[in-house]
Amino acid sequence: MGIVVSLNGERERKPTLDRLASLVEEDLRAVNELIVQRMHSPVALIPQLAGHLVAAGGKRLRPMMTLASARMCGYPGRRHIALAACVEFIHTATLLHDDVVDLSELRRGLASANAVWGNKTSVLVGDFLFSRAFELMVEDGSLDVLSILSKASSVIAEGEVAQLTTANDTETSETAYLDVIRAKTAQLFAAACRIGAIIADRPRVEQEALDSYGMNLGIAYQLVDDVLDYSAKQSVLGKAIGDDFREGKITLPVVLAYRRGSAPEREFWRRTLEDLNQQEGDLQRAIELMNHYDALADTVERARHYGAIARDALGIFAETPEKEAFLDLIDFTIQRSN
Amino acid sequence: MGIVVSLNGERERKPTLDRLASLVEEDLRAVNELIVQRMHSPVALIPQLAGHLVAAGGKRLRPMMTLASARMCGYPGRRHIALAACVEFIHTATLLHDDVVDLSELRRGLASANAVWGNKTSVLVGDFLFSRAFELMVEDGSLDVLSILSKASSVIAEGEVAQLTTANDTETSETAYLDVIRAKTAQLFAAACRIGAIIADRPRVEQEALDSYGMNLGIAYQLVDDVLDYSAKQSVLGKAIGDDFREGKITLPVVLAYRRGSAPEREFWRRTLEDLNQQEGDLQRAIELMNHYDALADTVERARHYGAIARDALGIFAETPEKEAFLDLIDFTIQRSN
Repeated sequence: MGIVVSLNGERERKPTLDRLASLVEEDLRAVNELIVQRMHSPVALIPQLAGHLVAAGGKRLRPMMTLASARMCGYPGRRHIALAACVEFIHTATLLHDDVVDLSELRRGLASANAVWGNKTSVLVGDFLFSRAFELMVEDGSLDVLSILSKASSVIAEGEVAQLTTANDTETSETAYLDVIRAKTAQLFAAACRIGAIIADRPRVEQEALDSYGMNLGIAYQLVDDVLDYSAKQSVLGKAIGDDFREGKITLPVVLAYRRGSAPEREFWRRTLEDLNQQEGDLQRAIELMNHYDALADTVERARHYGAIARDALGIFAETPEKEAFLDLIDFTIQRSN
Repeated sequence: MGIVVSLNGERERKPTLDRLASLVEEDLRAVNELIVQRMHSPVALIPQLAGHLVAAGGKRLRPMMTLASARMCGYPGRRHIALAACVEFIHTATLLHDDVVDLSELRRGLASANAVWGNKTSVLVGDFLFSRAFELMVEDGSLDVLSILSKASSVIAEGEVAQLTTANDTETSETAYLDVIRAKTAQLFAAACRIGAIIADRPRVEQEALDSYGMNLGIAYQLVDDVLDYSAKQSVLGKAIGDDFREGKITLPVVLAYRRGSAPEREFWRRTLEDLNQQEGDLQRAIELMNHYDALADTVERARHYGAIARDALGIFAETPEKEAFLDLIDFTIQRSN
């Protein structure tokens, strides 16, 4: 698709997270140390499970965004370290709770990552990480930061509940779906970025610009994730394709294919995603229908639209290595789908 | 058992919550209104489920303690209303998360209250209430209060995880069990009381006295609850007896009966509570063993001990109607077991 944008000759290459990662490398090391330190507990199960999730895995995308936004705003201190750890704790708590297996899902025989530790452990360790995040924020002492992140947490939980009520509903509209991912994914990206401007005492217009960057990047990120779940590219990333399909998740590719499809095709979507009555070859047929109606390509197109808004949001900031890294991140986000 | 203490002639009667309830009646009405207002969400499932729990039921014991402690400390303002609502939100979130059914429990075929709504809904609505509690605290704006309640939340979650790891272990010691209930039950009672002294700007010694009152009352409260689960009195309160037994919960009556029992009796406890291999008549036998070894009476005796500490903690406060109500609450807590 080749949408790499030339700004200064340097960026005409396959975008990666490298620039961002190397800019915040030292700070991120401090964040990782703090994370390990603050998830310590005499209750051994907590560092065990949390360590499994927090210490081992993940790109640390959200805390990197907090670190880079603080730097971009000229923040000279150390508060961004603990706040980046908060953001990661909240993210991890959300992941743990999102993985909780429901009774109905068990009946359908689906397994989940939390099957190893049990639902209850996932919930309670998630609660611990969430509380710990608030303790860290209280130590930081900024009511503005507390306000941003407690609000974000409410919105995330609200979005997760909203998704439950629209789950497996093939009639979900694009607007309703976007509302859900704005709340459950993009809100934390927005908060992660905004914090940098807050602790650097930057004016409201810069806080809002970083919020908008994070929000729109977050939407694009989730849309591309949705595409990858039906894309061969996914297997290159080491993940199986079709997870969303098997769980009956309604994502934008499904919304588009359903609305553009014929009556028998809609019947197919209802059988497979609402009734979860899936047979051999159904995933293949789903992908064929999506390709036939350009549902995957158009979802990437939508992601590109949000990426463009994210790019413009950064327009008011001077050219700095951090800004370049944030622009790279947009390209990286979109081009994962290639 | 008749441990009603005569202080001024008024208290020589069966203690109830009436005095406390009537003292804070007007404030509690404001708390209830705020609770309904702040659990509103465009996502209908949230007020539905939360309303089911928060609006409908419960003695509102914890928020009443915040209201009464603020009054006892001479606090003249309105901040105690929102903070009492926070305490209730945190309590309700904990209840929701505590009810999550685990894979292993499902295999054993146990049902749970959350079976109606599903595990996932319980978790996510709990997260919403928890986040909402923090939003309310941030609006209040006191970092001291935020510190108390974020710390309490961490400790509660830690206690819940600790309980998972000791669950179904008949070798659990009295000390280990007390650590768990101190964390998962008593900590929130302590925080609920302490907040009153904090917003009234009372000196540290009074904050700590109220913390100690709440902590020790909370321990006594949980111990009596443990007794009630094996007591005929429970059926008068409209609850079935034997829930803890069926779930294999290790509570203090079990700890005492196990440790005082013979080898074959310990085998009985292991079969029924560790292996959860329960037959007709086992609950009856458990109650007989507990009575034989005075495990229930001695658990009440332990509760009375913590009640006495709670009583002494209030010694530094002047005689006020609120103090009288708090003393009543100790008697009420213990005498539920009669």
